[in-house]
Amino acid sequence: MIKVSVIYPNKPGVRFDHDYYRTKHLPLIKSRMGAALNYYAIDRGLADAAGKPLGTYVAMCHLLCDSVDAYQSSFGPHAQEIRADVLNFTNVTSIHQISEVVVENSALDATEARQVPILQGASSYRSVIR
Amino acid sequence: MIKVSVIYPNKPGVRFDHDYYRTKHLPLIKSRMGAALNYYAIDRGLADAAGKPLGTYVAMCHLLCDSVDAYQSSFGPHAQEIRADVLNFTNVTSIHQISEVVVENSALDATEARQVPILQGASSYRSVIR
Repeated sequence: MIKVSVIYPNKPGVRFDHDYYRTKHLPLIKSRMGAALNYYAIDRGLADAAGKPLGTYVAMCHLLCDSVDAYQSSFGPHAQEIRADVLNFTNVTSIHQISEVVVENSALDATEARQVPILQGASSYRSVIR
Repeated sequence: MIKVSVIYPNKPGVRFDHDYYRTKHLPLIKSRMGAALNYYAIDRGLADAAGKPLGTYVAMCHLLCDSVDAYQSSFGPHAQEIRADVLNFTNVTSIHQISEVVVENSALDATEARQVPILQGASSYRSVIR
């Protein structure tokens, strides 16, 4: 399984409408990606390690899909529409990170079984990323 | 619920031993935090939005706890030991982000119920962060 993390850096003057993000933007993504989106998660920045609000990032979301292909083929056709919605909730430019989910949830045995073997080496990356 | 994300930026010459991270470092954290750690997750960087490996971050882990207090009181006493293990798997300095889990898993009804109401305003942050 792969995780696409959309990460919004904190900065002076940051604007982020968490309510819109939760009730409008992520449901929009879900409706457009359909069954290719296994599920999503939303994080709201609270603090950095020293307890200083809001931390390095003001918000993140994580889109969980079976593969990079599943993500690209379901998100890609709607990318323009989804990106056009971004100005409705923030004024910061997000970082997009695609990760392999090595451990999804350490408390679930099924997940721990799924983590072995993890990908090794650059050739494995190329087999995943087109 | 809160999530402590430990994020390792990608950089030229980055060293990251994903196998050690999965089989030694996270189990060390789990053993020290005990029941205060609900579960953890591990992500391995694959690519950025343009498909360029490995992306902005080479790896992340996420520690899920009921509260910031639960995290601090269980991790804090072992922080020195845990940090001393870091050089065994990487040469990059991590970013620590504490977030409120607004949506843990959109596919689970119980989680969606947990998300409402989300925190509003700076005074709410202060009530969570000591």
